[in-house]
Amino acid sequence: MTVAAELVARVEAGDRRALARLITWIEDDDPRAHAALAGLYPRTGRAHIVGVTGAPGTGKSTLVSALAAEERKRGRSVGIISIDPTSPFTGGALLGDRIRMMEHIADRGVFMRSMASRGSVGGLSVSTSDAVRALDAFGCDVVFVETVGAGQAEIDIVRTAHSVIVIEAPGLGDEIQAFKAGILEIADVFVVNKADREGADKTANALKVMLDVGNTMKQRRGDGPARVPAPSAAEAGHHGAREGNFPAEAYAPTTDATEWRPPILKTVAAERRGVIEVVDALDAHWRHLRESGAITQRERERVEDEVRQLLGRTLTRRCVEAGGLERYAALVDAVTARALDPRGAVEALIGAWVAQRKEAG
Amino acid sequence: MTVAAELVARVEAGDRRALARLITWIEDDDPRAHAALAGLYPRTGRAHIVGVTGAPGTGKSTLVSALAAEERKRGRSVGIISIDPTSPFTGGALLGDRIRMMEHIADRGVFMRSMASRGSVGGLSVSTSDAVRALDAFGCDVVFVETVGAGQAEIDIVRTAHSVIVIEAPGLGDEIQAFKAGILEIADVFVVNKADREGADKTANALKVMLDVGNTMKQRRGDGPARVPAPSAAEAGHHGAREGNFPAEAYAPTTDATEWRPPILKTVAAERRGVIEVVDALDAHWRHLRESGAITQRERERVEDEVRQLLGRTLTRRCVEAGGLERYAALVDAVTARALDPRGAVEALIGAWVAQRKEAG
Repeated sequence: MTVAAELVARVEAGDRRALARLITWIEDDDPRAHAALAGLYPRTGRAHIVGVTGAPGTGKSTLVSALAAEERKRGRSVGIISIDPTSPFTGGALLGDRIRMMEHIADRGVFMRSMASRGSVGGLSVSTSDAVRALDAFGCDVVFVETVGAGQAEIDIVRTAHSVIVIEAPGLGDEIQAFKAGILEIADVFVVNKADREGADKTANALKVMLDVGNTMKQRRGDGPARVPAPSAAEAGHHGAREGNFPAEAYAPTTDATEWRPPILKTVAAERRGVIEVVDALDAHWRHLRESGAITQRERERVEDEVRQLLGRTLTRRCVEAGGLERYAALVDAVTARALDPRGAVEALIGAWVAQRKEAG
Repeated sequence: MTVAAELVARVEAGDRRALARLITWIEDDDPRAHAALAGLYPRTGRAHIVGVTGAPGTGKSTLVSALAAEERKRGRSVGIISIDPTSPFTGGALLGDRIRMMEHIADRGVFMRSMASRGSVGGLSVSTSDAVRALDAFGCDVVFVETVGAGQAEIDIVRTAHSVIVIEAPGLGDEIQAFKAGILEIADVFVVNKADREGADKTANALKVMLDVGNTMKQRRGDGPARVPAPSAAEAGHHGAREGNFPAEAYAPTTDATEWRPPILKTVAAERRGVIEVVDALDAHWRHLRESGAITQRERERVEDEVRQLLGRTLTRRCVEAGGLERYAALVDAVTARALDPRGAVEALIGAWVAQRKEAG
């Protein structure tokens, strides 16, 4: 039995230390991780993957911890992957925040892990999706992937989730939501956390306005479902109905089979207020994805995207490495100096690789 | 002389019809375009490439037309590439808008061209950068690349420019700026167009707040220059100074050698008001890039990015085509059905390709 096969057997048997080791291999891009993941792959595809993102200071970790507690109450096992930003600034702040997750440390139904970006941005995206797969194969019913919603890399990461929660908080500057605009379009559930603070209604309202503007823009661009324009008061009422959910009120699904409208929910995660409604919304969205059949299409697209990305990355890496990094840098320099054009550099790289392979074979 | 070499000679000689044909080849991904671009490549790297983006209704085309007129007054030749969105909705609106550019139709110092996305999103990004290169080799001093700032593809396109203008307009909804947040961070110059309309100050102010929040967030993330926090009144005064430029006031550069702070400028492009200041800002930014040395680093990064992208795309395409698209689809289906893992699919694709090459060689 190879080391990887042994690890697969142990992960399948529910060995948490084996799972932890596998994720370390994934982080290190260790070839044994690839073998183990291949072995575990048939057991994946069952977990509900939830992306959670928001600016520093919105209380992401506290909310995720509270959501995990609620999921546990519902009898589900939970995985949590926290993506650590590379910056020493927010890194420190987030680690402090995550102390709040310690409540789950003794619960064997919760597996937590932070991952740092050791390689390239694209590398983080691949290794996060591998780690999620490991937790899925381990048997987690729900996997939360928590990132700081700042850059494209984080957007790419949460984009692979089934459901995406975007967290806001009042008092971080009136227009702070703007910085998540790339994320607005992929959000399935909005949460205004720290909703006991001044300005929570204003923040929720700003989100509502942006959503409405977004819907209008989608219609104008023609890439959203064409809706009969509703009077703005009715639109406001639409979201308003769900805004009233705080502190505790039943979650009212507002979607039909073909369309999901992201609800805007208020929470005070530190006091566990409003958390039940967020988990209700996640359940409703997961149900919506499966009942509408959207999950099948989404899954195939996700797989195609992953295969194509992995193919491009693998081929590029092998080609560049075959020629040597110095040769690669020299070619880039030559293109920068206009001594060679980009396609010429590409053909030189591929040609050298092919010649080498022929010689080797 | 090959057809491509002949075209190169004609483009170099300033033949506009040859240039138009080259861009058609680029759009069609015709192999002759690659040969011609390789021939023209040594003549590139001289133009100032300016990306212009903004939501539909901000008056982008009118502004670009006005900027082109001002550049012409300064004795420069101008290229304009307009990226047509694939959507029939905005497509119609934009084409109507572009009638305003007709003023330049008889001016041989202006070359205009719209490009549509015929292939994939990534394809549009590659062909736009090829078209810009063609205009650069043709001898344009300034090349404007105009896109609708809606999706990631457009962001990728303007990202390759030396200077990026983001256009806002009042009255498109209070929070509409939010939708360009991914773009906010790459903007070098902000323009509030239609500044004679109600709400222009509000729009400019919202931008200012977002910029300030963005700077704060960058500092917190640690990926921006660490600035001594200024009192918010002073911050407001900072941007406020430049807001006062409308209707006509000298452009006051607000940067030192190492840092560029995007100015917020107001225009009424249809009446040519405020346009001089925008071109002044573009000139200042272009000067800043060259004097600070930022241009060298930016150019090498751009080239490396392009070579790597082109390498990945070329290898992926050749590998997928060698195995046949049906085989590729079958492998993706197998991964979706969990019968195969993603890396297994990738190795199967590469293995088949290598075997084929060996047989062929």
